Amino acid sequence: MSQNSASSAPASRRRLRLGMVGGGPGAFIGAVHRIAARLDDRYELVAGALSSDPERARAAGAELFLAPDRCYTDFRAMAAAEAARPDGIDVVAIVTPNHLHYPMATAFLEAGIHVICDKPLVNTVEEAEALVALVRETGLVFVLTHNYSGYPMIRQARAMVAAGALGALRVIQAEYAQDWLATAVEQSGQKQAVWRTDPTRGGVAGSIGDIGTHAFHLAEFVSGLRCTALAADLQSFVPGRRLDDNAHILMRYESGVRGTLWASQVCTGTTNGLRLRLFGEAGGLDWHQEQPNELRFTPLGGPTRIIQRAGPESLPEATDISRLPAGHPEGYLEGFAQIYRDAADRIAAALEGRQAPTEAPLPTVEDGLRGVHFIHGVVESSRRDAAWVSLPAP
Amino acid sequence: MSQNSASSAPASRRRLRLGMVGGGPGAFIGAVHRIAARLDDRYELVAGALSSDPERARAAGAELFLAPDRCYTDFRAMAAAEAARPDGIDVVAIVTPNHLHYPMATAFLEAGIHVICDKPLVNTVEEAEALVALVRETGLVFVLTHNYSGYPMIRQARAMVAAGALGALRVIQAEYAQDWLATAVEQSGQKQAVWRTDPTRGGVAGSIGDIGTHAFHLAEFVSGLRCTALAADLQSFVPGRRLDDNAHILMRYESGVRGTLWASQVCTGTTNGLRLRLFGEAGGLDWHQEQPNELRFTPLGGPTRIIQRAGPESLPEATDISRLPAGHPEGYLEGFAQIYRDAADRIAAALEGRQAPTEAPLPTVEDGLRGVHFIHGVVESSRRDAAWVSLPAP
Amino acid sequence: MSQNSASSAPASRRRLRLGMVGGGPGAFIGAVHRIAARLDDRYELVAGALSSDPERARAAGAELFLAPDRCYTDFRAMAAAEAARPDGIDVVAIVTPNHLHYPMATAFLEAGIHVICDKPLVNTVEEAEALVALVRETGLVFVLTHNYSGYPMIRQARAMVAAGALGALRVIQAEYAQDWLATAVEQSGQKQAVWRTDPTRGGVAGSIGDIGTHAFHLAEFVSGLRCTALAADLQSFVPGRRLDDNAHILMRYESGVRGTLWASQVCTGTTNGLRLRLFGEAGGLDWHQEQPNELRFTPLGGPTRIIQRAGPESLPEATDISRLPAGHPEGYLEGFAQIYRDAADRIAAALEGRQAPTEAPLPTVEDGLRGVHFIHGVVESSRRDAAWVSLPAP
Amino acid sequence: MSQNSASSAPASRRRLRLGMVGGGPGAFIGAVHRIAARLDDRYELVAGALSSDPERARAAGAELFLAPDRCYTDFRAMAAAEAARPDGIDVVAIVTPNHLHYPMATAFLEAGIHVICDKPLVNTVEEAEALVALVRETGLVFVLTHNYSGYPMIRQARAMVAAGALGALRVIQAEYAQDWLATAVEQSGQKQAVWRTDPTRGGVAGSIGDIGTHAFHLAEFVSGLRCTALAADLQSFVPGRRLDDNAHILMRYESGVRGTLWASQVCTGTTNGLRLRLFGEAGGLDWHQEQPNELRFTPLGGPTRIIQRAGPESLPEATDISRLPAGHPEGYLEGFAQIYRDAADRIAAALEGRQAPTEAPLPTVEDGLRGVHFIHGVVESSRRDAAWVSLPAP
Repeated sequence: MSQNSASSAPASRRRLRLGMVGGGPGAFIGAVHRIAARLDDRYELVAGALSSDPERARAAGAELFLAPDRCYTDFRAMAAAEAARPDGIDVVAIVTPNHLHYPMATAFLEAGIHVICDKPLVNTVEEAEALVALVRETGLVFVLTHNYSGYPMIRQARAMVAAGALGALRVIQAEYAQDWLATAVEQSGQKQAVWRTDPTRGGVAGSIGDIGTHAFHLAEFVSGLRCTALAADLQSFVPGRRLDDNAHILMRYESGVRGTLWASQVCTGTTNGLRLRLFGEAGGLDWHQEQPNELRFTPLGGPTRIIQRAGPESLPEATDISRLPAGHPEGYLEGFAQIYRDAADRIAAALEGRQAPTEAPLPTVEDGLRGVHFIHGVVESSRRDAAWVSLPAP
Repeated sequence: MSQNSASSAPASRRRLRLGMVGGGPGAFIGAVHRIAARLDDRYELVAGALSSDPERARAAGAELFLAPDRCYTDFRAMAAAEAARPDGIDVVAIVTPNHLHYPMATAFLEAGIHVICDKPLVNTVEEAEALVALVRETGLVFVLTHNYSGYPMIRQARAMVAAGALGALRVIQAEYAQDWLATAVEQSGQKQAVWRTDPTRGGVAGSIGDIGTHAFHLAEFVSGLRCTALAADLQSFVPGRRLDDNAHILMRYESGVRGTLWASQVCTGTTNGLRLRLFGEAGGLDWHQEQPNELRFTPLGGPTRIIQRAGPESLPEATDISRLPAGHPEGYLEGFAQIYRDAADRIAAALEGRQAPTEAPLPTVEDGLRGVHFIHGVVESSRRDAAWVSLPAP
Repeated sequence: MSQNSASSAPASRRRLRLGMVGGGPGAFIGAVHRIAARLDDRYELVAGALSSDPERARAAGAELFLAPDRCYTDFRAMAAAEAARPDGIDVVAIVTPNHLHYPMATAFLEAGIHVICDKPLVNTVEEAEALVALVRETGLVFVLTHNYSGYPMIRQARAMVAAGALGALRVIQAEYAQDWLATAVEQSGQKQAVWRTDPTRGGVAGSIGDIGTHAFHLAEFVSGLRCTALAADLQSFVPGRRLDDNAHILMRYESGVRGTLWASQVCTGTTNGLRLRLFGEAGGLDWHQEQPNELRFTPLGGPTRIIQRAGPESLPEATDISRLPAGHPEGYLEGFAQIYRDAADRIAAALEGRQAPTEAPLPTVEDGLRGVHFIHGVVESSRRDAAWVSLPAP
Repeated sequence: MSQNSASSAPASRRRLRLGMVGGGPGAFIGAVHRIAARLDDRYELVAGALSSDPERARAAGAELFLAPDRCYTDFRAMAAAEAARPDGIDVVAIVTPNHLHYPMATAFLEAGIHVICDKPLVNTVEEAEALVALVRETGLVFVLTHNYSGYPMIRQARAMVAAGALGALRVIQAEYAQDWLATAVEQSGQKQAVWRTDPTRGGVAGSIGDIGTHAFHLAEFVSGLRCTALAADLQSFVPGRRLDDNAHILMRYESGVRGTLWASQVCTGTTNGLRLRLFGEAGGLDWHQEQPNELRFTPLGGPTRIIQRAGPESLPEATDISRLPAGHPEGYLEGFAQIYRDAADRIAAALEGRQAPTEAPLPTVEDGLRGVHFIHGVVESSRRDAAWVSLPAP
């Protein structure tokens, strides 16, 4: 086999009791969340509201080894019942279309249950602010699955920037290009496409909400800087599409840093092309999601170095969360699972009334609010023909 | 997110009861097996012989949520006790150094328990033949974790070759180069290195046994051809090393196909560089383990096409076992988990007395025997200064 | 060696008599022009104004095998003398800093001598328009060395777009990133840096003029579309720098096509990173200058194909101008030489009073005018905080 | 443009008078030699024996601007006439099929004319030894165009090995794979294929002579080590082919270094795939001809560095012979031209009775002899079923 041992066992050894809302048969992201929860053996799925149809809810639950009495058809009923059980769920994963995040998160938080929620947070600034307030009020853990921030080499990049490896930053180039909406697949009923291109469910933005928010979050996450203003030009290239499917954005960050952000779902030849490049006075970094195990670092005056996850010059921030040695590719699921693993540490600490041992950089409800500001800022700027729109400070 | 839904749930919904022998704290491959078993929720780990020290066995078991009475210190005791329990394990995973595979596999097979065993199978041809006989006699499932054959694009390559996309094959180039043994790490006590370079535990071969067997299996697995003869030149470059750490081999396959196989663990700049290239009258294929989601196919007279897992021209053999859409990288753990998923189908069918629904191409005890023949053939050829040595037909 | 023969000899067999202005010892681009002129044996360098210092002019001329009486110290004297000689130069190459292009080009055109001129054309719109008028009036050939348009795979991309391989275009992403000005090298006297960052010589723009114009030209050249408006955000990151060293631009093209253009000379880890990506309804193209022999083409619904220069699916537009078969890399000099070869065909035809046999897509004085409009549009937009600025139709 | 100036002018400024034998219209390698000779302006082509047919010889000569009286139809007549002229050629380039190299080289050497000759040197060991003796006897310069040794990053690799960057070498992997002979193109009359697959012209070996010798030369050139023994398995995959089109070879070098060499012309998906990897105690190098401007260097314990030609960590051996700054790709022709440039230095020095200023590592007649030994050693080993064959020390 190979050289390193997989990372050591987590400090706290209890499996958290997990519930899931949404994510029934055929759902893409629900299955991903479940694998992510299982990977490190920190969760046990014990309850779900997988369908509003009783028959289908029970069948889906059986498929997932849920007890029949914990297969709910209504999320409010589930929150109430689980809160009342002595063995009720510790945490719920919300994996529905965007417009349902707000009422669901609210219901579970009010029932005293920690929340892991898919992105984007919610569809309006008002909802986002209300959720921020509720999380603060309840003191519960709220984790937003900006899963790309769980990739070890993204953590490495963040650590390198923080440690000054790039010196003062100058330029951030973020792009996230896909091609699966290059034709009007929503008109043929493709389930993933239908709700994402429907304003009543997906919100005011299409590609910007679906993938642009990931790129935005990652740019801020890695750079440690806040975007202060943006100027956006949105397009809907596919005839009949009601939301944007392509976006070009000029970005201004704190400290005079500049950049662009490009999000697209209509560019044939790209697949899940999330790429982040950062350039500073002392060096540059280049990372591509489709080759997530390597990070290219070029110090000023030196050749480019290919830093491999868990290999030479891989920092503890990346190596310690690696499950495999270098050369054994980890991927999307492991990055997603990292969010779950870090969330488990935090939730377990909360349940036991102690500090989480190491404060992993998990995306929070506040990051969700920023994402909603970003979405609305972009839409507003584009409506005003790419006028500059300021983003509020967090 | 993205376009496809993750693959549908498996036909049979029961979790198999899994035991593990070896794989205690600090073990690399034990942790990998456990994640692989968990990924698709087809197994539940319920028993283990994780250490011969009672204290450590219990601690390691607690870490893995095992009941105290199922934390064994002796594999024979475990086989007997589990076979006697009504809720005893269905299958055991053997994840120890090579020299223990034989007695352990024998014990569990004789106790009527299915076996998943790490590679290489055993250290001698005699042991391998005895195991083959025992598996046939008991009718139990025996799966060898040549995990790289679980990668979707390896399954794709195999399917393309079988379908004639390359025409009659001509050349197979297999290489597996690492660098983690470039220095005498075994002398500093690195646990993974120590037993692999110790003939009493690793067997007659070093790199050939550890990684050469993977490359050999993959070459035969993808090509559908058997190696008939080989001529090998082995080296031990690192002073004091007792087994080979580099091997160059001329290969002859059925039907006049020729190739080379290179295995090394001392080549700085390679990491886990398993690469397979096949060339035929009508086209060529190129796959590299470190970028496992793509397969390069060049038809005669056409440009090279980059086929992505679950993307255009991805065959059902690859797409149907994908957990994620194209562009969302899967890696080593998913490939390993595929072996476990396919094994679960087969074992569940055996337990229920029916045929496994689709006969996935799982590595078997017979493949293990071939691997042992390969190891001994290589060592013999090298002793005779790279004379040709025939491999027996399977 | 290999399979194809190099491309056949050009139709017209005469060597053009070439003069050069600028490009004395230590000049980068002068040496490039000379190699480009020599490569296909269509020119003979016979005269030059390589320095205003008589001693240095003669020494530099001797180095280049010029006769002493054709080593001039003044471009006007050179234009007059050469025009008067029966064996005077047919064509002059102008390879000086930008601010000298206008008077020099004017002098040679007025003397009836064809011109090959480095880019950008001139520093002001007025000069550019005057040159356009003069070229039209004289009927002489004027070629602008937007050399990247001479790369075979750029010609291929242009031909594919024109033939509809991408369908209706949607998005054009152009980027040209370098890092050689990441520090204030101009303050240490680096010759190439000094004049490029000096407004009196480089003009109103820095990186935009030096490399942004290449990216702009290429985007229009390949797409066949005109940019109609742009919104630009310019920066001068290096303290003390007087011109832009980084530029982010939103681009709007004819037919609703959108894009961005990024030019930078301060991004460590990029070298000469000119990349062009085009996406249309039916497919996408991706080309990178540092790997110029391949073009990635992804048809809608198919895998990406790596089209190699002179290999399968290489069109006549690329193969016919290849000097080498596929796999034998051509580079920057060959692309530059293509401009010279095409210019030779055109000039020879003009000298002989006939049509140039195939009308190669050479960059003209009108392209130079567009580049100047682009530069001034970008600068104006940035001054107005990234307001949209229209570009005039050509 | 960019940062560096092109390399400075050579010390000696005279153009050598060059003759060419072979290389008439349609010849591939003749055109390459001519461009290589022109690139740095160190040669003037003044005479040729381009065809044995007077009409065609004159037409071809006119195409190349040769005076009619220097268009010969017979190489012996040319050697005699040119030797007799006061302005006769200084050096001849021999660019014919292999079997003609010997009589031609002999004729020109005997006439006192320096020789640049294509590879492989000749077809038999006897001829090779005779040529070595003749070159020594005459004291003339004899350069063999193992052109790949002219690539800057190959020179860099050689210098790094010599300087100990890899420590003591262990493994050398050389491969040169093409696909242009994957079908029986010689049967359709393809000129390049016909003579290469004809034993009376190509010699005893096919792919081994045509491209294997390049890989062999490069392995020794870069490593500074001599191959001492080899064991080869040759194939002729294409029905009707009379010479090998694929070869797998086990290699043993001085100092216990081991390797393989693979040469093939039938592997679809490879193009001109010459790759060289060297591994030593302290690091590894990886170079691929199709991306010749970069060299990957991995020091033991560090990440892989991508060293770019003329970029950071590019040594003088590479930077000083670069015509362009990093990021501006040089290719095959520039590498070939380097051989010509170095040859010009050496020949000019010889003509002027002085030492060549820096002794560039040019391939010599002795290297040619080694190549012939290699060819015959491979063929003999393969005839004896891959028995070990020793190569004589040089």
